Amino acid sequence: MQSKYLAKIFVTLRPSVLDPAGVAVQSGLQQMGYDNVEQVRIGKYIELLITSTEEKKARQDLDNICNQMLANPVIENYRFELIEVETQTGVF
Amino acid sequence: MQSKYLAKIFVTLRPSVLDPAGVAVQSGLQQMGYDNVEQVRIGKYIELLITSTEEKKARQDLDNICNQMLANPVIENYRFELIEVETQTGVF
Repeated sequence: MQSKYLAKIFVTLRPSVLDPAGVAVQSGLQQMGYDNVEQVRIGKYIELLITSTEEKKARQDLDNICNQMLANPVIENYRFELIEVETQTGVF
Repeated sequence: MQSKYLAKIFVTLRPSVLDPAGVAVQSGLQQMGYDNVEQVRIGKYIELLITSTEEKKARQDLDNICNQMLANPVIENYRFELIEVETQTGVF
């Protein structure tokens, strides 16, 4: 039996890593008059569908996918949420 | 009295808009053997701190900030969550 999961993946820069894009956005916002905004940090938000026989296997795959493709473990952290969206029972 | 809020902002492509980066990631994952992954969509995840006298005002500011700077309303949707992190009472 295969289940399909929606994965919501957050990739963020580690707190110790400088974020030039975030600094640029904050600077732009200040020039627009938003001087009440600080500490802008820009990361990635990825959604995908993953099919697996069990949730544990899906989580293992996602850990590998994040470490190998979606995040740079040296400078980025990631976390994800899994939501089961569909279960396909095999035809007997 | 000023409150400080952590804003978690999600910017995603509208469903009707093609996501070439997402297609490229999915193609790469397939070449790595992850043929159980589909519909990869890549968006932005932004965190910032915003100071405001009331939550309603902070939400209005964030709507403007998203529409003017963080998202392209023609092709992207956004949503955000606000978490109050600190309240500064004035000194009397």
